[in-house]
Amino acid sequence: MALNPQYEAIGKGFVQQYYAVFDDPTQRGNLVNLYGAENSFMTFEGTQLQGAAKIMEKLNSLQFQKINRIITGVDSQPMFDGGILINVLGRLQTDEDPPHPFCQIFVLKPLGTSFYVQHDIFRLGIHDSV
Amino acid sequence: MALNPQYEAIGKGFVQQYYAVFDDPTQRGNLVNLYGAENSFMTFEGTQLQGAAKIMEKLNSLQFQKINRIITGVDSQPMFDGGILINVLGRLQTDEDPPHPFCQIFVLKPLGTSFYVQHDIFRLGIHDSV
Repeated sequence: MALNPQYEAIGKGFVQQYYAVFDDPTQRGNLVNLYGAENSFMTFEGTQLQGAAKIMEKLNSLQFQKINRIITGVDSQPMFDGGILINVLGRLQTDEDPPHPFCQIFVLKPLGTSFYVQHDIFRLGIHDSV
Repeated sequence: MALNPQYEAIGKGFVQQYYAVFDDPTQRGNLVNLYGAENSFMTFEGTQLQGAAKIMEKLNSLQFQKINRIITGVDSQPMFDGGILINVLGRLQTDEDPPHPFCQIFVLKPLGTSFYVQHDIFRLGIHDSV
């Protein structure tokens, strides 16, 4: 499969959609549709999870209600199998906690006319102190 | 190709080797061996480059002589084509500049008995101010 020339627009659009759903506790459960039953990996703050069920168990266990999120950078690259690699940098604040920097990497793979998340790595606040 | 069960050791080993070469100005040119002539992408501070020649032109243009680098986190995942996705977080200080946080993502692809870097995204200092 060829490089997808729309990689930049797809990356930015995906990031907007993903966090719009993630950041709304009433919608967060819908993220299950973005992950494969077995062929998706997430590393959440160093904990590795495989498959939509385990990933959603983790995401549904998050306790905060409010998220303020600022995206400071999105870098996307086309992959040679038609996928898209995305790196997101930003800051987020949950409930009354102080803001923390975060980074999140996604690898999207084509599935029919859309994409699913094959790889997802999330790290929070690692850059706080210098 | 199956998931590589050694993904974690390969990820950590690659990161150590990569920066040992990168951080030594007399060795940096050897990084050319890690990138494909056409089938490697690098996004360096938002600038996208394709192919070993353009990537090395960028890396060879960097002016600093000394780098102090601290790796604060390495997350690796196996990919379904035998590749390895790596996220590196850390801080680096060049010459007499203040230290800056950085993150770098690599996608390694198998090539014979080794790997080459198919994707590389580097971002510096984006998390400095909150």
